[in-house]
Amino acid sequence: MLGTCEDTLFELFHGAIVSTILKDATAEEEIDERISKLEYIGFSSGLRLAERFTRDLPRFKDELDIIKFLCKDFWTAVFKKQVDNLRTNHQGVYVLQDSKFRMLEKVSNGRQYLDKSSRLLVYTCGLIRGWLAALNVPCVVTAEVISMPACKFHIHLQRSS
Amino acid sequence: MLGTCEDTLFELFHGAIVSTILKDATAEEEIDERISKLEYIGFSSGLRLAERFTRDLPRFKDELDIIKFLCKDFWTAVFKKQVDNLRTNHQGVYVLQDSKFRMLEKVSNGRQYLDKSSRLLVYTCGLIRGWLAALNVPCVVTAEVISMPACKFHIHLQRSS
Repeated sequence: MLGTCEDTLFELFHGAIVSTILKDATAEEEIDERISKLEYIGFSSGLRLAERFTRDLPRFKDELDIIKFLCKDFWTAVFKKQVDNLRTNHQGVYVLQDSKFRMLEKVSNGRQYLDKSSRLLVYTCGLIRGWLAALNVPCVVTAEVISMPACKFHIHLQRSS
Repeated sequence: MLGTCEDTLFELFHGAIVSTILKDATAEEEIDERISKLEYIGFSSGLRLAERFTRDLPRFKDELDIIKFLCKDFWTAVFKKQVDNLRTNHQGVYVLQDSKFRMLEKVSNGRQYLDKSSRLLVYTCGLIRGWLAALNVPCVVTAEVISMPACKFHIHLQRSS
């Protein structure tokens, strides 16, 4: 009866935390600091998820293989669907498009989030970054809302070479 | 493979938020304010969960019936197990004991949370209060850690009479 309660709870909690972060802080600097903290919380979660599931992970052939796993298995486990579109410039930039992103889907109804909606993606940016860092793929992740609830995540790999 | 990812994610996120709340604030007053905000976030989540699942809920005979539903169905949906023990003084106080509370279980390992562990229960206190408020059972909810990961929630009904 309350089977999907858990999913809903995470979304509600996440939405409320982001909302609280936005509401409280007034100075631009303070907002930036909090956003960056939220990204770091995502990063830690990504790292720890990877640690926890390491023994279940396949052996990855290469970088693209890792990104594909992120788009399919990881995305499905966390967001209940796969990424809809994956593009790359073959120079270390990957763009993931989700046309119905779960963290935007429910919050979008009835809230005045449109102008600040990209802040709802910050935690996920961190999550991706942490997950990839654990798999030895350091990167920078940014995101943009295209139109609710569609969004894009840009993964810029940081190569040592 | 990553089936239980979602559960873990919520726990990680919750743990990190509570940890951030504790780390940042130094003044006792500020901590209290943040704790109270976290309780309110739980309250809102509880309310909204109840709204969302109202049509699936049974008709409740009485107050005890509502509390029993909370201990069994609600607890299972959110925390993956039932409450282990329910007691009441028949004067509007209910004590729920969970001998292996999910929000304490994983965080307890390797973190110095023991002295401040009751703060990990604040969100759940709010959640219970919100859920019951939606079912027209106003109450105050407090919690105590007995020994990790066992805890008790005290529900004090607020009767209009």
